[in-house]
Amino acid sequence: MTAADGDRDHVQSLERGITVLLAFDAEHPNPTLAELAQLTGFSRPAVRRFLITLERMGYVRGAGGRWSLTPRVLAIGQHYTASHALIELAQPHLLHLAEQTQESASLATLDGDEVVYVARVPVRRIMSINVSVGTRVPAHATSMGRVLLAWAPTEQVDDVLARHPLAAPTPNTVTDVGVLRATLAEVHRQGWSVVSEELETGLLSASAPVRDRSGAVVAALASSTSTGRSTVEQLERDVVPLLVETADRITADLGGTARAS
Amino acid sequence: MTAADGDRDHVQSLERGITVLLAFDAEHPNPTLAELAQLTGFSRPAVRRFLITLERMGYVRGAGGRWSLTPRVLAIGQHYTASHALIELAQPHLLHLAEQTQESASLATLDGDEVVYVARVPVRRIMSINVSVGTRVPAHATSMGRVLLAWAPTEQVDDVLARHPLAAPTPNTVTDVGVLRATLAEVHRQGWSVVSEELETGLLSASAPVRDRSGAVVAALASSTSTGRSTVEQLERDVVPLLVETADRITADLGGTARAS
Repeated sequence: MTAADGDRDHVQSLERGITVLLAFDAEHPNPTLAELAQLTGFSRPAVRRFLITLERMGYVRGAGGRWSLTPRVLAIGQHYTASHALIELAQPHLLHLAEQTQESASLATLDGDEVVYVARVPVRRIMSINVSVGTRVPAHATSMGRVLLAWAPTEQVDDVLARHPLAAPTPNTVTDVGVLRATLAEVHRQGWSVVSEELETGLLSASAPVRDRSGAVVAALASSTSTGRSTVEQLERDVVPLLVETADRITADLGGTARAS
Repeated sequence: MTAADGDRDHVQSLERGITVLLAFDAEHPNPTLAELAQLTGFSRPAVRRFLITLERMGYVRGAGGRWSLTPRVLAIGQHYTASHALIELAQPHLLHLAEQTQESASLATLDGDEVVYVARVPVRRIMSINVSVGTRVPAHATSMGRVLLAWAPTEQVDDVLARHPLAAPTPNTVTDVGVLRATLAEVHRQGWSVVSEELETGLLSASAPVRDRSGAVVAALASSTSTGRSTVEQLERDVVPLLVETADRITADLGGTARAS
């Protein structure tokens, strides 16, 4: 297979093979070859060759005409986790925060205009989507994203806010760029963010920044709850101080100084 | 790129591209192109084309002549997690077990002759290796592996025990096939396994089986501690009952019946 798009530096079969791997999800945990061809838009013979290759590498398994992912695919993400010391360092702090608050604790980083969960201690399921390590959500609509954007380089913020239209997962989601810029300035000033029902109805979350030794904000620590169990006021009073304290401890473990800039 | 190994169904560039992705790890979090060529054994022009493709897909990032993984690689493993309901169901139970024991709790499945961590609540770091979701360890040397092998099909057990020589990560690791078979029979009879310092010196762990609604053992639940904080006797007396109870609760959530066979 050579790159058909006229770009000799692009390895099309690598991109397509990974696309086949990503076609397996909660809605399609055990697809047939025909279903995979439909999901990816590739021909059945092409999908078959990718499946055979992925099966030999141990990433998929076929039985009775249906295919499924093996736990070996977890190794790919594990290489990210292993190469980012922050994630391992943060784990005991996430657990402690989850115990203190009896709510799920998460650590996330920014990737483009989305926030990616890189570590998580789930206490209970609040969101209707299955949030786990690797899950991506729109940055502007979450407390974690607002913390990360509040300290991000200007060009990155401009780039995120320039997307039209900004996603509005709920009727409460702020998409007005002027209001969002003012909110980011406030988050930067106060050192934390609380967001209520902008990502999902009933979901409340608070977030604080984690810094590396250069003072750069490298992750956001968050605690999530539901409108049935807490309010914005309770979160600000009871959870934000714990959150800031925990984020500062992770920062200290990374060799950084809390609230450096 | 066509398959050069004479097998037209094998997509070599897919395998090689994933190999480049896996060359990033704790020892090489920010390799140069030359280092990646050395690590993978591929030519620099080939590595360069894979990197360009992976960069366009958002999986790697290049800056100042060095490359790193982006959190987007976590999405690949997330598709495994999302397509296996067991993992999400088990999370609150793992957290509860970790709180009760104040020790790390893990869930693992068998993949070939290795055990793969599919969920984990780390309380503190015990092992010298960075254990996270996706980490693989030899099945025969761990309590989780012994639980999974104790209920695995005979052919699978034979296959694992036929490997010569069986890995012996510590001087205590049992590698005698006869002794291992007797141990698996005992684990099957008693319904749990405790292993002391066979995977790593100073590491103690206990494990119990989780079953699906068909009664098949689909995962092992484990609690790990160190010889500095506990003994085999304490683990058997205090932790095993909690572990079996928690594993049975996960089994019930999966629609299964505890200790079905």
